[in-house]
Amino acid sequence: MHQSPSGSSLGPGDLDLTQVFFKPITNAAPPSSTKRQTKISVIGAGNVGMAIAQTILTQDLTDELVLVDAKPDKLRGEMLDLQHAAAFLPRTKIHASVDYAVTAGSDLCIVTAGARQIADESRLNLLQRNVSMFKNIIPHLVRYSPDSTLLIVSNPVDILTYVAWKLSGFPSNRVIGSGTNLDSSRFRFLIADHLDVNAQDVQAYIVGEHGDSSVALWSSISVGGVPVLSFLENQQIVYEKETLESIHKAVIDSAYEVISLKGYTSWAIGYSVASLARSILRDQRKIHPVSVLAKGFYGIEDGEVFLSLPAQLGRGGVLGVTNVHLNDEESQRLRDSAKTILEVQTQLGI
Amino acid sequence: MHQSPSGSSLGPGDLDLTQVFFKPITNAAPPSSTKRQTKISVIGAGNVGMAIAQTILTQDLTDELVLVDAKPDKLRGEMLDLQHAAAFLPRTKIHASVDYAVTAGSDLCIVTAGARQIADESRLNLLQRNVSMFKNIIPHLVRYSPDSTLLIVSNPVDILTYVAWKLSGFPSNRVIGSGTNLDSSRFRFLIADHLDVNAQDVQAYIVGEHGDSSVALWSSISVGGVPVLSFLENQQIVYEKETLESIHKAVIDSAYEVISLKGYTSWAIGYSVASLARSILRDQRKIHPVSVLAKGFYGIEDGEVFLSLPAQLGRGGVLGVTNVHLNDEESQRLRDSAKTILEVQTQLGI
Amino acid sequence: MHQSPSGSSLGPGDLDLTQVFFKPITNAAPPSSTKRQTKISVIGAGNVGMAIAQTILTQDLTDELVLVDAKPDKLRGEMLDLQHAAAFLPRTKIHASVDYAVTAGSDLCIVTAGARQIADESRLNLLQRNVSMFKNIIPHLVRYSPDSTLLIVSNPVDILTYVAWKLSGFPSNRVIGSGTNLDSSRFRFLIADHLDVNAQDVQAYIVGEHGDSSVALWSSISVGGVPVLSFLENQQIVYEKETLESIHKAVIDSAYEVISLKGYTSWAIGYSVASLARSILRDQRKIHPVSVLAKGFYGIEDGEVFLSLPAQLGRGGVLGVTNVHLNDEESQRLRDSAKTILEVQTQLGI
Amino acid sequence: MHQSPSGSSLGPGDLDLTQVFFKPITNAAPPSSTKRQTKISVIGAGNVGMAIAQTILTQDLTDELVLVDAKPDKLRGEMLDLQHAAAFLPRTKIHASVDYAVTAGSDLCIVTAGARQIADESRLNLLQRNVSMFKNIIPHLVRYSPDSTLLIVSNPVDILTYVAWKLSGFPSNRVIGSGTNLDSSRFRFLIADHLDVNAQDVQAYIVGEHGDSSVALWSSISVGGVPVLSFLENQQIVYEKETLESIHKAVIDSAYEVISLKGYTSWAIGYSVASLARSILRDQRKIHPVSVLAKGFYGIEDGEVFLSLPAQLGRGGVLGVTNVHLNDEESQRLRDSAKTILEVQTQLGI
Repeated sequence: MHQSPSGSSLGPGDLDLTQVFFKPITNAAPPSSTKRQTKISVIGAGNVGMAIAQTILTQDLTDELVLVDAKPDKLRGEMLDLQHAAAFLPRTKIHASVDYAVTAGSDLCIVTAGARQIADESRLNLLQRNVSMFKNIIPHLVRYSPDSTLLIVSNPVDILTYVAWKLSGFPSNRVIGSGTNLDSSRFRFLIADHLDVNAQDVQAYIVGEHGDSSVALWSSISVGGVPVLSFLENQQIVYEKETLESIHKAVIDSAYEVISLKGYTSWAIGYSVASLARSILRDQRKIHPVSVLAKGFYGIEDGEVFLSLPAQLGRGGVLGVTNVHLNDEESQRLRDSAKTILEVQTQLGI
Repeated sequence: MHQSPSGSSLGPGDLDLTQVFFKPITNAAPPSSTKRQTKISVIGAGNVGMAIAQTILTQDLTDELVLVDAKPDKLRGEMLDLQHAAAFLPRTKIHASVDYAVTAGSDLCIVTAGARQIADESRLNLLQRNVSMFKNIIPHLVRYSPDSTLLIVSNPVDILTYVAWKLSGFPSNRVIGSGTNLDSSRFRFLIADHLDVNAQDVQAYIVGEHGDSSVALWSSISVGGVPVLSFLENQQIVYEKETLESIHKAVIDSAYEVISLKGYTSWAIGYSVASLARSILRDQRKIHPVSVLAKGFYGIEDGEVFLSLPAQLGRGGVLGVTNVHLNDEESQRLRDSAKTILEVQTQLGI
Repeated sequence: MHQSPSGSSLGPGDLDLTQVFFKPITNAAPPSSTKRQTKISVIGAGNVGMAIAQTILTQDLTDELVLVDAKPDKLRGEMLDLQHAAAFLPRTKIHASVDYAVTAGSDLCIVTAGARQIADESRLNLLQRNVSMFKNIIPHLVRYSPDSTLLIVSNPVDILTYVAWKLSGFPSNRVIGSGTNLDSSRFRFLIADHLDVNAQDVQAYIVGEHGDSSVALWSSISVGGVPVLSFLENQQIVYEKETLESIHKAVIDSAYEVISLKGYTSWAIGYSVASLARSILRDQRKIHPVSVLAKGFYGIEDGEVFLSLPAQLGRGGVLGVTNVHLNDEESQRLRDSAKTILEVQTQLGI
Repeated sequence: MHQSPSGSSLGPGDLDLTQVFFKPITNAAPPSSTKRQTKISVIGAGNVGMAIAQTILTQDLTDELVLVDAKPDKLRGEMLDLQHAAAFLPRTKIHASVDYAVTAGSDLCIVTAGARQIADESRLNLLQRNVSMFKNIIPHLVRYSPDSTLLIVSNPVDILTYVAWKLSGFPSNRVIGSGTNLDSSRFRFLIADHLDVNAQDVQAYIVGEHGDSSVALWSSISVGGVPVLSFLENQQIVYEKETLESIHKAVIDSAYEVISLKGYTSWAIGYSVASLARSILRDQRKIHPVSVLAKGFYGIEDGEVFLSLPAQLGRGGVLGVTNVHLNDEESQRLRDSAKTILEVQTQLGI
């Protein structure tokens, strides 16, 4: 009998309509096993994971979508809720399980799982618990999808992307952190809102460590292809460095603001990660500020650390890093972040 | 100074870049005020309202999206979270306020607000509290958007759509309940899943009262244009009425199942309501099973009651109801539902 | 040096900017060769082939699109014209060549090439010339893409699909003719236009031989899930068989009408074939009336003939045929078509 | 009786199924006449006009699409060919007529009509004939759609946009020429192709007169937000001005190349104009290089001339022009173009 994914078996009197409704044609041969279907697994069915999963589904980015979570009830509820929308969407196979076997053959594994901070818990202790969690997740993903790309969303994203890289043994181009892709989107929104232009016309990057010590690339800001800073210079308009920094500060604050207002962030990170999934799986060769192995860039030579840099993404994962110019202060801030992260990493014992 | 919607004023030294970045052309005239922009307001920023809002945004169905809720913090958090995705989406104006003035000129108002059941509260008492809530919502919507269409999602949807109709004074074609549109989608998913076909190829309706007493229209089920029941008859396949009823029961149970598993439903109702919004605003003239004024249909003559029937939706709201054949038992069940609902309505004092 | 597909070499002083613009990350590994990219080849860059190619491009159905034609100038002009739109579209690799090597590894090969009728040429002579053309096309496609699905659009489509099947040696599920998919779309448009409903809400099939002897499946017509004929019976509305036949005749005439008015058909066949490509490549398991090996259906037992039947399409090509009920007259007409086609086929010497 | 747009009347025995299939609900009111439907008219059903119309249809940019052409047969053939695809597309009303009354109430009128050059005809004589044609077109459009925006695609586009502006009496923000939007797309493709990046990540403008004397804005070229020229300087890479100019020359040549190869251009201009239509009708406030009234920019003071400049487009048409920096040579070339165009315009007697 055809096994319903919703598990709602229809009883012993059930007709197997598939057999009577369709008849095979003569001389047909079963399809070969090497068919090119796209499969995405999302690990963690919380607010972030589900916003990512639903956006991927709406944007029709995959042929098969898999959810994995440790809580079977929540997981099954979310799967059914997505499946019930089948009549409104292109056909996508949606599966969910607490067992990682369901992820087998994924092209992209998106990890959103993470421990929640306990009262009075130190940042390092929380991180240690997340590392333990990753030790339970990453080897399963590697085992079932050895050719996949890992996209890490859990925080602190830069360190956990490093952890995933070490645990996976994958080449560095196939381990990516969502990094400052969303920070950059917030930056572009604030600039667009300020100028009353379309945010898609704004090019602006925030790079480096995701969070308070990120670096805004002022010289790369352009609107509709017009570099903003040199435009202001040409117009002989005096601007204060404080003004620019206040926009950057607004970006940093906005994540905290959303969390303080609604308790978590979900929609924007969902769209942000879906845009990365599209660039990777559809080989779009687009440039995104994401967390990549930064060794060898901007004088970061001594250790293995992941930081967000403008990276070109495609089917092969990270295709390269744009060699954007940073001034001395900016590249120093990157190196400082790298140093801080490395110190934390040595405490993790990975 | 240009007022940022995110409210993050950039201080007194702020440049108004819009003025220097763009220069007007000569002989330009301001656009006339009658420009045809589409505006949707979603009342209630809970799980259902936000899933609807986000799906509408992803599917690019409107030029302006407004959120209204009584909780200003949650509301602002949700608005910012959507706005931060601007770089990943076509430009849509997103506003939010506790003040209904922000909804002015809406084409479609989607009401998802509803009271939560208190322990030991009677169903009627809960309904009374929802009616009170609607008395605070509907007149504001009517005042600010007298030409809009009201789409009611709050439960019990059939009675509350009637309440919204009475409170609004709108013609009946401009007050619609989401009704069994989602039940029908679940029905189509279960049939599609059973037959291993695309759910978009399945035509199947559940009509009547949203919930346990809904009516499945067996004779209208077709797959890829092939009527399933007459197909089975032609193939001389014996099927048990119990089998069909078990599918209908699975539909009814599935809503309860999702709620018991994840605590609420969100994604499927989001896609379902977005599909209604598209049919209405883009004048698609598609047929959806939604809650409409059912007086005059199937012998429901004595009172004003809203029940789901296959209705053609377009810019004018409900364009007509498909005169689908019901057998005696089915139309009797519709009349029974109508009678029950009418008895409740008389207790509401609307 | 990076070779520009547009061939516009930029001279000896040219910088290879790719090398300086992107820098590889450390520990990266080249992507494995088994990456799952989708590739479609369109054979024939005439009006039909180009409308198909452009619709596939706009609808973002493939990662790589290849054009093959015998006329190198026309071919290159069409390729450049599509490539120049790159900034408005998701990134798709677009190639064109007179050499079939460019089609290597295609998932789907769409054949639109066909000879034009010469004055006073017999239908059989024209067909012989098309068969000769297919003898030059199909073996190349099989050689370079042995796992592909062949989708034949050239006319007479049913016979040429048979020819492609014999020449390819492919299993029957991987050789499909566009058949009456477009006729059915015209049928649905005329019914929808008549009822003022959305054509997507109309289920209606024309099956059998593409052209004058096609068969309209009246009993399967439903609108929004309501079967039209039984609806009319339930409403005790008398309708004339002549009325229904006049709609079918209008469908048959409409192809001739478009050709007489604009000289060829292009847009509708473009959308029609793109819808087939989507169902096949995205494994949509949708039901389409397309030309499949009809042996064993409706008493067609004696020979190998391709006719349009409602077939479920997915990654494996034809997954099965819906066993729709035909009355005696309808199935007799199918058998008559089969007989006529078989007689022609015996004259071809394939 | 319901009048079929395809004109294929079904005879006197025809049932008006609409009346029996749908039944109105009680208390319904007809929709008000001020509903916000979007309407686009395309004037000229040649290769360019039809590529624009079909792309607009595929991208679902309008509720109503109208074609006008002087040749009724060709026109009706194209309309039917688009209508036959109804089952594959969202519902869009498609009309066509030789009578401009069909354009009434358009939001956007796209003019692609133009005379073809006769052997040995002087450029001025050809232009005079196009002006005569515009005298027959523009007043009709103004009469039937006084609030519309005019988008001129016919060549020479800059002069004909001026002619349309004068003939229409419209404010300058509502008369736009497609200008160098397509040249810029070709420019972006060539750069993207050269760097192996996504063309959507390339910002690059060609401005000024559409054609041989256009001006490439080198300083504004950025890839993924990285300004290319300053990047090269920072990397101390020596580049030759000749290299850059060879890319610009390739852009200019590519239009001629496509025309010499396939006889005309169609697909890329179709996508290009559809992107302008989206920005205007969906109020996207995006920046496009299009032909606008250039008086007052870059020292063009003496006369009324249209040239392509980076303009922000939205519901009000041209919202402003980005004040991009040009060096002395570039702004001199703009002024030279303006002077040449003005001299031609004085000969036209508009």
